[in-house]
Amino acid sequence: MAESPRRAAGRRLQLPLLCLFLQGATAILFAVFVRYNHETDAALWHRGNHSNADNEFYFRYPSFQDVHAMVFVGFGFLMAFLQRYGFSSMGFTFLLAAFALQWSTLVQGFLHSFHGGHIHVGVESMINADFCAGAVLISFGAVLGKTGPAQLLLMALLEVVLFGINEFVLLSLLGVRDAGGSMTIHTFGAYFGLVLSRVLYRPQLEKSKHRLGSVYHSDLFAMIGTIFLWIFWPSFNSAPTMLGDGQHRTALNTYYSLTASTLSTFALSALVGVDGQLDMVHIQNAALAGGVVVGTSGEMMLTPFGALAAGFLAGTVSTLGYKFFTPILESKFKVQDTCGVHNLHGMPGVLGALLGVLVAGLATHEAYGDGLEGVFPLIAEGQRSTTSQAIHQLFGLFVTLMFASVGGGLGGLLLRLSFLDSPQDSQCYEDQIYWEVPGVHEDEARGPLKVEEPDTQA
Amino acid sequence: MAESPRRAAGRRLQLPLLCLFLQGATAILFAVFVRYNHETDAALWHRGNHSNADNEFYFRYPSFQDVHAMVFVGFGFLMAFLQRYGFSSMGFTFLLAAFALQWSTLVQGFLHSFHGGHIHVGVESMINADFCAGAVLISFGAVLGKTGPAQLLLMALLEVVLFGINEFVLLSLLGVRDAGGSMTIHTFGAYFGLVLSRVLYRPQLEKSKHRLGSVYHSDLFAMIGTIFLWIFWPSFNSAPTMLGDGQHRTALNTYYSLTASTLSTFALSALVGVDGQLDMVHIQNAALAGGVVVGTSGEMMLTPFGALAAGFLAGTVSTLGYKFFTPILESKFKVQDTCGVHNLHGMPGVLGALLGVLVAGLATHEAYGDGLEGVFPLIAEGQRSTTSQAIHQLFGLFVTLMFASVGGGLGGLLLRLSFLDSPQDSQCYEDQIYWEVPGVHEDEARGPLKVEEPDTQA
Amino acid sequence: MAESPRRAAGRRLQLPLLCLFLQGATAILFAVFVRYNHETDAALWHRGNHSNADNEFYFRYPSFQDVHAMVFVGFGFLMAFLQRYGFSSMGFTFLLAAFALQWSTLVQGFLHSFHGGHIHVGVESMINADFCAGAVLISFGAVLGKTGPAQLLLMALLEVVLFGINEFVLLSLLGVRDAGGSMTIHTFGAYFGLVLSRVLYRPQLEKSKHRLGSVYHSDLFAMIGTIFLWIFWPSFNSAPTMLGDGQHRTALNTYYSLTASTLSTFALSALVGVDGQLDMVHIQNAALAGGVVVGTSGEMMLTPFGALAAGFLAGTVSTLGYKFFTPILESKFKVQDTCGVHNLHGMPGVLGALLGVLVAGLATHEAYGDGLEGVFPLIAEGQRSTTSQAIHQLFGLFVTLMFASVGGGLGGLLLRLSFLDSPQDSQCYEDQIYWEVPGVHEDEARGPLKVEEPDTQA
Repeated sequence: MAESPRRAAGRRLQLPLLCLFLQGATAILFAVFVRYNHETDAALWHRGNHSNADNEFYFRYPSFQDVHAMVFVGFGFLMAFLQRYGFSSMGFTFLLAAFALQWSTLVQGFLHSFHGGHIHVGVESMINADFCAGAVLISFGAVLGKTGPAQLLLMALLEVVLFGINEFVLLSLLGVRDAGGSMTIHTFGAYFGLVLSRVLYRPQLEKSKHRLGSVYHSDLFAMIGTIFLWIFWPSFNSAPTMLGDGQHRTALNTYYSLTASTLSTFALSALVGVDGQLDMVHIQNAALAGGVVVGTSGEMMLTPFGALAAGFLAGTVSTLGYKFFTPILESKFKVQDTCGVHNLHGMPGVLGALLGVLVAGLATHEAYGDGLEGVFPLIAEGQRSTTSQAIHQLFGLFVTLMFASVGGGLGGLLLRLSFLDSPQDSQCYEDQIYWEVPGVHEDEARGPLKVEEPDTQA
Repeated sequence: MAESPRRAAGRRLQLPLLCLFLQGATAILFAVFVRYNHETDAALWHRGNHSNADNEFYFRYPSFQDVHAMVFVGFGFLMAFLQRYGFSSMGFTFLLAAFALQWSTLVQGFLHSFHGGHIHVGVESMINADFCAGAVLISFGAVLGKTGPAQLLLMALLEVVLFGINEFVLLSLLGVRDAGGSMTIHTFGAYFGLVLSRVLYRPQLEKSKHRLGSVYHSDLFAMIGTIFLWIFWPSFNSAPTMLGDGQHRTALNTYYSLTASTLSTFALSALVGVDGQLDMVHIQNAALAGGVVVGTSGEMMLTPFGALAAGFLAGTVSTLGYKFFTPILESKFKVQDTCGVHNLHGMPGVLGALLGVLVAGLATHEAYGDGLEGVFPLIAEGQRSTTSQAIHQLFGLFVTLMFASVGGGLGGLLLRLSFLDSPQDSQCYEDQIYWEVPGVHEDEARGPLKVEEPDTQA
Repeated sequence: MAESPRRAAGRRLQLPLLCLFLQGATAILFAVFVRYNHETDAALWHRGNHSNADNEFYFRYPSFQDVHAMVFVGFGFLMAFLQRYGFSSMGFTFLLAAFALQWSTLVQGFLHSFHGGHIHVGVESMINADFCAGAVLISFGAVLGKTGPAQLLLMALLEVVLFGINEFVLLSLLGVRDAGGSMTIHTFGAYFGLVLSRVLYRPQLEKSKHRLGSVYHSDLFAMIGTIFLWIFWPSFNSAPTMLGDGQHRTALNTYYSLTASTLSTFALSALVGVDGQLDMVHIQNAALAGGVVVGTSGEMMLTPFGALAAGFLAGTVSTLGYKFFTPILESKFKVQDTCGVHNLHGMPGVLGALLGVLVAGLATHEAYGDGLEGVFPLIAEGQRSTTSQAIHQLFGLFVTLMFASVGGGLGGLLLRLSFLDSPQDSQCYEDQIYWEVPGVHEDEARGPLKVEEPDTQA
């Protein structure tokens, strides 16, 4: 349906006004509520009797930086595989994550570190905010190319709140363990995005199908994302775990799991490929499933063999999902999952949660020794049996699926508000709606040679 | 004006001979003056009575690596946005920074760590040398595409010396605080480069304007630079600050400031764009201004709200600068600023210096407690009032602008020496003068198919 | 020679079946043998009386992550310079390294950390496994484009074993020092690969020569690899050295050496280039030789000047090697060295070993003080003179060359087994044999527009 140029131009004000409003609002809330914690505040830190080497910064900041690289480099480039949507993939990742970091500092702060009327921040809040941004970007992957930036900011506004509440229910109320976020990040982010994508279902999307694919170089850009996610995933899962053996073991388990998911992804991709050819989509995505699947159990005494087995299973399930389940998801369930987040985050996240149930249920005092307190404090304190912990873990998965589904549904209804700027069916997966785009070849380059105005009226 | 092939070939010897001369000279100076410090020397370290965990390496090396990545990956790729100048952007960044690291180890060493006739080096000298290389690369950004590599090495030779002296005057003589270098790195590097670019003004540069723009993939390569600069900027500002709360707070402030400059950049870019379209140049650059603007005040008790406000302001000013001021800078002031360093480093650097004046002037014993010694030692020791510190900070900005301007002028005169190899107006922003360049498409690939000789005679 | 489609399809099963078999085998061996060490095991760690800050994790994990980035990002992208082989370069690097990490955990574990019937793993085994993967990838560079993935996995299967034995002979039996692996990693990997490439010599390879070159963007992707290798090399060499001054000094030496190899590479590349033009191949590779050449001596009291001199020499030799020796290597010695590993790893590795001989021979009790124990324990304990240590170092180089040559020969015979899937002469350096490849331009994009079936029958 055609739209007047004037109205189109009016809609274009949504993004800047929303950015300014959201930034103003978080700034005011920061002014009122957010304060340095005792490790970042000059007066508070020096009041204590401790060495500078004790500052949490030195235990967690290197891992934080790796997580930060994953969120911005990893997710950003991984989604840049589309031939004409690289600017949007990178740019909107950047925008969404930057907003989510501020907003989740507030939401998580109110729920987790609100003392004396103030939120206290330090390196742990930085890590947690990055985790929340990761969940938002997972959801972004499900609707990539079919939503405008103002819509995406509204999605983030809602999702961050629900992420925070779900995380609070699991970790604080239910005593669930989920350091690397198989449930709180991957399962939540994936199903929130998938349900949202279902609500935004576009029956006429085949109009844009010619842009829904990669070109040779865009696949190499996407590999930047894949490899940075892969190498830093041990830091992702271990960033928030207990110090000492906890971080060490989590990193090790994740490292092994990823090697196994890589091998199973190559094996399965070649097995199901035409003429035994490998598919870049599988390599870029399914090889990462090993990181997702040990998000819950990575800090536990999973054993190195357990990590390999888990990673192998996750890579297998994820590759088969890309090959066989994604088409069904669209044709039968009307879920258009651009990046296949169901395969990379959804199924491996659920598997990871179930693996956590299993490993928690098998925990023994002998295996953990005095380290039990760090991994399962409620069991160590005698408040819970291992079976009870396992049941709580399972219930945590259920709660997460509920929050994600209801939240994704609400989000979808919010994003369908008719006044919101949204790309038309024929203009999905296309940078030119939102960006000044230079040519692909030199003679079409940006600069003095002005590109033609994008046709925003269908 | 045409030039004989022979003379052109002769000029080509300048780069290798200069490299060999400079490397020989620094090697001799290293042999005479540079020694391991007590933390890197086997005998000295083991003479002390300390645990290996006390070695400065463990407190600063992870941050150093992030800074190192920013200098080489960040600056290198950020400047690779030009369609036909990617080899030179990456390659000359690599060359200039490698030389600057050696040369500034000597210059900074003579000024800061010269004891008993020797310069003592360790992880702090590595960080400081990388900072100096950063300033050189900022200046490079102003003259990108219009200077040859031999000219650039001479620029670095001069700039490193002036950088070192300016830094010494500010930090050691004036007692100015500037951990992340709003003044010493960003303001200095930008105005040095801008004045130098003014002296090298080319009225006929429109002959190369068709190459002064990006193509689709070159903008994605530039985003690699942007994102790595963005994620690691907290390490940049915190790398040299005092241990404990100092590094922790600086990283946190920088993190928040960058999120805010990102939001304001998206808002302003869309507001001033045609049809509300976003401009990649803004996103690639102005979103980083939040890191520059807290370079001075990041280690102070800026408060999280202060960081957001500063970042918001910097992103706004920087984006508006790209849109409205860069054209004026060329047309009225005859400064051709290829990368817009005035917008990313110049104005945000000056803003950052002024913010440092403000935050220093507002410092109280109550807010800093016993941590005052670490941030403002002269105030803590009673040698200075906060007002006096603020005035010194302001004077430091003035000194920096003087050194940068005079230095840039001198540098420009040096680079105009007629025997130096410099690209002709019609060959600016063009790799083929300095590099063997393969084709863009497969059938023009490097290898057995030899590319045509570049036409070096206009 | 033509081959029936059926037989070609049958060969395509080799990769998935081999992946599944190898993953199954390592998983079983992990289940039987691999256990957490006392720093990663919850019970064992908490049984000890130590602070969490003492956990080896905090001393080595940041360096491990840098090494991990080098192996996967650095090697992967460095080899992506070929115009039509980017998927394979990145993808097979990913596959080979993932397998090598598992397999070398077992091999190195049996040889180095096998206690009580079990292999004990932690961050040091992660670093060592990454080092072994690095050697495998160096060998991969020599045969890049001329081998199929199943062949490469078999190569890794053999090479990891021989790498482990060679490393064990040098470090444990001969008491050779080689922290950064000038011998064990670079020399071994290079000559293993070169001999293997000799055995696989293809006289008709000129059929594929039109693909043996870069295009403009593939050279920029390769620069991602170069720069990440360059910046993180100080972590590579220092990751396994003794704590305190050892890691600190090694990082510093490597940093200086690399700056010098960069300057000499630019100088020599311009000197030998047509019209003084720089060659991207030199910059991408030879500039890194400074990291290789201090792999043995970096932890020693090399002095900052020594590091510069070594780096300068390595960059020079490497650049001249690319220009003058690589063609001879193919024409006279029938070694087709795709990535020029002889120039980047072979010669600089041997130089690095010899430099180690020299620096070990010059060691004095005065220069090392009580730190001698950490660098040369056998000398400190009086079991060896410095001359004896130097001779052992030299013998270590000889042993490494023997293991590499014999191993590469065996590997070549293994890979020539006629039933193994190997690209035909006319299809080398070509992704389409192994990958579903999208078009280079938008109108040929992957997705609904199906690319034509690759022609796998010559």
